[in-house]
Amino acid sequence: MIIHELMASECGEILRRMSFGRLACARFNQPYIVPIFFYFDADANRLYSFSTVGRKIEWMRENPKVCVEVEEIADQFHWTTIVITGRYLEVSNAAEAQAARQRAQELFQRRTQWWLPGGANLASGAEHEEPVIYSILIDAMSGRRAARPV
Amino acid sequence: MIIHELMASECGEILRRMSFGRLACARFNQPYIVPIFFYFDADANRLYSFSTVGRKIEWMRENPKVCVEVEEIADQFHWTTIVITGRYLEVSNAAEAQAARQRAQELFQRRTQWWLPGGANLASGAEHEEPVIYSILIDAMSGRRAARPV
Repeated sequence: MIIHELMASECGEILRRMSFGRLACARFNQPYIVPIFFYFDADANRLYSFSTVGRKIEWMRENPKVCVEVEEIADQFHWTTIVITGRYLEVSNAAEAQAARQRAQELFQRRTQWWLPGGANLASGAEHEEPVIYSILIDAMSGRRAARPV
Repeated sequence: MIIHELMASECGEILRRMSFGRLACARFNQPYIVPIFFYFDADANRLYSFSTVGRKIEWMRENPKVCVEVEEIADQFHWTTIVITGRYLEVSNAAEAQAARQRAQELFQRRTQWWLPGGANLASGAEHEEPVIYSILIDAMSGRRAARPV
């Protein structure tokens, strides 16, 4: 199998049609991975997402350095992975961030299939907490695509 | 949607039949995610995997704290995620580690579908490098399963 590096434009194309990936944050050099839904805003060079407050949000508030990974896997000869490193930026509840919050919420509404972690709550509680809206400002992005050797 | 926490035994059951997940390592608090294949050795409380030398191996040699995430997703009402935190342990090439290397290689041979990153090489080079065999000693493991509310 041969693996090709993708150009930034190819990574962007894939991110535009994907909305599911995994985010890693770290505290005291201990990484932690969670699945997330996101919306890629190419103009702003960032991903948008939301989550109820929990370990992930607490860690990212402390250390904004994150990594996001996205996969498209058909079979062993046809797969693509994209890895993004970036910085967590919370969209605050303050009045002056109203426009940014609204923009993020509009983006989220274009996706109907957002059902995983961020939105969901444990059966044990925390049912009606206000979600945190955040963005990941993209610092670097790389992609790999597998191809059958010819 | 209601989400249930899994017991350790349920996590173990899932890990035994899965072999694909994502590993996050970190350097200077910057996390980095890569897809991996692994073999779960319940008796040894660890995952085994291998990889050619690259960023991931270099980072884990420097900071052994890692996280592994595994998903089983059927649809929005039927999904399970498992998150493991643990420590990277390299299986050395030294003569005294011969038995451990052999054990790991036997485990790998039970999987026929190991085709992603670790094994593969970039078209640009590093073709015949000896892979590094490593294990992740599991420190903590948690799992969540989604269910439709009744």
